[in-house]
Amino acid sequence: MKHIYLDHAATAPTDPRVVEAMRPYFTEVYANPSSFHSFGLAAKRAVHDARERIAAHLRCREDEILFTSGGTESDNLAVEGVIGAAKLPKAHIITSSIEHPAILEPLRRREKEGTIDLTVLPADRYGLVLPEDVQKALRPETVLVSVMYANNEIGTIEPIADIGRVILGWRTAQASAYPYFHTDACQAAGYLSMDVQKLHVDLLTMNGSKIYGPKGIGVLFGKRGVKLRPMILGGGQEKNLRSGTENVPGIVGLARALDLSQDMSSLESERLAMLRDMLTEGLLRIPKSRLNGHPEKRLPNIVNISFLDIEGEAAILYMDAKGMCASTGSACASQSLDPSHVILATGLSYEAAHGSIRFSLGRSTTKKDIQYVIKMMPGIVEKLRHMSPVNLDMKHFVK
Amino acid sequence: MKHIYLDHAATAPTDPRVVEAMRPYFTEVYANPSSFHSFGLAAKRAVHDARERIAAHLRCREDEILFTSGGTESDNLAVEGVIGAAKLPKAHIITSSIEHPAILEPLRRREKEGTIDLTVLPADRYGLVLPEDVQKALRPETVLVSVMYANNEIGTIEPIADIGRVILGWRTAQASAYPYFHTDACQAAGYLSMDVQKLHVDLLTMNGSKIYGPKGIGVLFGKRGVKLRPMILGGGQEKNLRSGTENVPGIVGLARALDLSQDMSSLESERLAMLRDMLTEGLLRIPKSRLNGHPEKRLPNIVNISFLDIEGEAAILYMDAKGMCASTGSACASQSLDPSHVILATGLSYEAAHGSIRFSLGRSTTKKDIQYVIKMMPGIVEKLRHMSPVNLDMKHFVK
Repeated sequence: MKHIYLDHAATAPTDPRVVEAMRPYFTEVYANPSSFHSFGLAAKRAVHDARERIAAHLRCREDEILFTSGGTESDNLAVEGVIGAAKLPKAHIITSSIEHPAILEPLRRREKEGTIDLTVLPADRYGLVLPEDVQKALRPETVLVSVMYANNEIGTIEPIADIGRVILGWRTAQASAYPYFHTDACQAAGYLSMDVQKLHVDLLTMNGSKIYGPKGIGVLFGKRGVKLRPMILGGGQEKNLRSGTENVPGIVGLARALDLSQDMSSLESERLAMLRDMLTEGLLRIPKSRLNGHPEKRLPNIVNISFLDIEGEAAILYMDAKGMCASTGSACASQSLDPSHVILATGLSYEAAHGSIRFSLGRSTTKKDIQYVIKMMPGIVEKLRHMSPVNLDMKHFVK
Repeated sequence: MKHIYLDHAATAPTDPRVVEAMRPYFTEVYANPSSFHSFGLAAKRAVHDARERIAAHLRCREDEILFTSGGTESDNLAVEGVIGAAKLPKAHIITSSIEHPAILEPLRRREKEGTIDLTVLPADRYGLVLPEDVQKALRPETVLVSVMYANNEIGTIEPIADIGRVILGWRTAQASAYPYFHTDACQAAGYLSMDVQKLHVDLLTMNGSKIYGPKGIGVLFGKRGVKLRPMILGGGQEKNLRSGTENVPGIVGLARALDLSQDMSSLESERLAMLRDMLTEGLLRIPKSRLNGHPEKRLPNIVNISFLDIEGEAAILYMDAKGMCASTGSACASQSLDPSHVILATGLSYEAAHGSIRFSLGRSTTKKDIQYVIKMMPGIVEKLRHMSPVNLDMKHFVK
């Protein structure tokens, strides 16, 4: 049976070369990096080496790389760490409506509990967060601005460097170290430059499984001088910012995965962009369909299309029966049947958002796969529409 | 060159059978368990199956097993989760002076910030926490009692079931759901019964790497009805108690490691207890030495000995040169040169605590290894004493 995996944005397979790199750290160099003996030292060296290589890709210092258990923890630590260390009675935070729940949920909990003031910036109809909106929202008590690098559902690439410059300007004018600028780069890593100097970010989240590395490992880049209150306390690992025995195989695997994805980045981006455009074009031939996200400023591997008069979840199951794996939006929110908050944020109607499907391409994706999807989708959409009680017209795309 | 690893309490190698069990979940069944398609479902089933098997070993329900990134996070979540959910203006917590920093550090931070009242119970000279001390410390506003199952440095096994009964009695008398009883069982798993019903615990921490499973994965057992405030928020995984894409290979590996260690438990405990006693006896023949911890109520794999007039760290390096890996105490605290808080808590003098060495045995340990250690240690201790500026007598063991 056919098996076409178009859900790479949910998680990618671990590259066999990454598994190979991790292997000795399970059964041979297995000691605790905090142990004093030579065996512990070997593990410590492996962690140090991984940290240096990751730092080189980010163009930062080795001691600015902090290992966590994944993208969610890194995002949470950026939020909770900055707010906790700033110690304001009521800090102000700026974020956007298209962020991942790992940013929005901790912020919303704090807002509800009354411990922060929160500004959630809108996105435009392409999912773009505008630097001028950030500029207008800044206040003297703003301690953190968090805007993702590229959106995981619609693939829109945000103007991070421009927002970074706005924040730099504000800090200079106010002679303040705040606000820090954080970006969630989980989805961007492997496709876009991770140069934190050019991006003008103080904090950056990255994880393993989105770049063909292992699950359960992530990075938080934190610029020297950035003050963070640790969330997880104990043995004092990671300069006391994240306690717990280092996940040595995971750390080694993440470094190897980043090496590989940076090596392949430009060629693979080009290859995927071509397949992405082919898929987009093919799917938009289906009547009453619309591309979500920005037509140009988007990742090479994400195609998000809304089809009127269908239920996205039903489409996923029909596609699955034909050997195609895709998703309705973020896997993280897929347990709920609510339409994507990201797609709603771009101004799509609730009805249209319900019929959205994310196809996320990756290293295994071939031209043949894309041709098959283009061939199969019209029939699936037609079948679902046939069963649908509604029959909306194009003007229903927009609220 | 000889290579004798006697630091299993810091971390154990991953059993090759565990690595084998994890393998397909890196490159084959790699999807996100939250994805709707059949591929996601396969990953979800693997997680569910692992959860069921772990629950069977703990004699609890499948939905009472929560996956985290390790023992430290589980301990932190027990502390922060219970305090956060209880919502008292000033909750009272009871713990002991021999706990792991993953319990003590978050509690001390809260105490310092004035958000809890903390009672740290003493241990007796064997490292035992007494149920009657717990009884006396209980107050109507006590929300959590946390006492570890077996100590990671000296191996003393705590009377968890007895403390559990004290707490049950108090709750009945007060007609209250509080305090919850948490135990850190990281070091006990693999050697002692994990039956949470017999232990009368509401929360229990376990991790992968101590039972020959992978690093970066842990479990928090939380009895149905126990109220926890999540620390890590986002996509709502683990019933909203711990967000982040599930570490599927880690979860599968932990379940396999627990299966194996439970299968081997009684035979291996017996084998190690014999080697442990042989090692203890051999080392105590060295003048001015003392066994730390309880003479009987102790784990089969930990031997902690203090030698007067030596520096533990120097001994570790000398031992390393002779092919023996051990530690001065917890690897987690080994970056600091302060003597172990656990050994000080048993009433040992600062000077004697400084000369403590933990030998932690494991599956690879043979009789020959132990004979070698017994043969080599007197010379190392003698050499170090020769260089030592101090010359204490036996009465200096005790403060």
